[in-house]
Amino acid sequence: MNFSSRLLEDAVAEFSKLPGVGQKTALRLVLHLLNQQSEDVEKFSQAITRLRNEIKYCKVCHNISDLHICEICSAVKRDKSIICVVEDTRDVMAIENTNQYTGMYHVLGGLISPIDGVGPSDLNIESLVDRVKSGETGEIILALSATMEGDTTIFYLYKKLKEFNLPITTIARGIAFGGELEYVDEITLGRSIATRIPYENSLVK
Amino acid sequence: MNFSSRLLEDAVAEFSKLPGVGQKTALRLVLHLLNQQSEDVEKFSQAITRLRNEIKYCKVCHNISDLHICEICSAVKRDKSIICVVEDTRDVMAIENTNQYTGMYHVLGGLISPIDGVGPSDLNIESLVDRVKSGETGEIILALSATMEGDTTIFYLYKKLKEFNLPITTIARGIAFGGELEYVDEITLGRSIATRIPYENSLVK
Repeated sequence: MNFSSRLLEDAVAEFSKLPGVGQKTALRLVLHLLNQQSEDVEKFSQAITRLRNEIKYCKVCHNISDLHICEICSAVKRDKSIICVVEDTRDVMAIENTNQYTGMYHVLGGLISPIDGVGPSDLNIESLVDRVKSGETGEIILALSATMEGDTTIFYLYKKLKEFNLPITTIARGIAFGGELEYVDEITLGRSIATRIPYENSLVK
Repeated sequence: MNFSSRLLEDAVAEFSKLPGVGQKTALRLVLHLLNQQSEDVEKFSQAITRLRNEIKYCKVCHNISDLHICEICSAVKRDKSIICVVEDTRDVMAIENTNQYTGMYHVLGGLISPIDGVGPSDLNIESLVDRVKSGETGEIILALSATMEGDTTIFYLYKKLKEFNLPITTIARGIAFGGELEYVDEITLGRSIATRIPYENSLVK
């Protein structure tokens, strides 16, 4: 693109680095900001800088937090005996939104992915083992994505954690609610038959 | 959404204000920035603030520029006798990319749109009339979108400019190159028959 201004070009280049944002979208976003009040743009850029520089991670579960111990870890009412292991803070938010879970979390900060150069030592696995070692835990739920990376990570964690003789569970995989059978892929459908459960068990409150 | 941090919530709220960016996309972008180096995030937010505070608009054509007179207006080689009137800087970039036009531009900064509260006085129309009055101009091309707002603006400009007895043209409307007749809407197809041109004229270099 032929930019009429270097400042414009720089801003578009920065926006283009964001995931899923191409040059045309970046230009549209930048021109939108250019039409806003100067104070609003200042607020926008300050929110980003402050986030990056002042954000803390919970010392227990590694979730994003404003405090050293996050609200979930310091809550009195939650069940401290279950740890739900997730990839990142988005998964915590998604599970919290279901209102179905009242235990603790542990945020890995990613998944094992040799192709991206992410090994077990890059994730918050050591601290998970330490938490389990401390003896408070009664069950570990592995709530990771049903992808190659997710499965690799689940297998690695299982091997690391099985020595503690705790129930290690993974979230159920199968056809989604509202999903029509004929559109479900073969692997999911096949596995959902193999891992079928008694009808009464599917009626949980 | 339940955010685990106010800083995170603020940043997501700011990103959600951008056009076409919902809360989920905003969260994805913010978490991406959070994973970047602090200096890179600083660069990102500075590029935006600098753009907003230091940007200039060309005094002649109102295009975005780093100088008081933009490169196109100060170019010696360009044809000063033709002014192409466009909505915003994106249109200038699009036309420049065609390499088919060597005249001047005039950026209106929007289109007349009563529903959005944009009237003729909010656009750079007075300065266009002044440019034409100065006598250097031999033709005015109205290159505006083929929408209700575009047509309203074209009609307004035509009435304002016709007293100068100059050729006032609009860019051709019709079926796009590569377009198949059966998929073209009726208005476009009907108008493209009514405004047909001699075959030889369609063979411009």
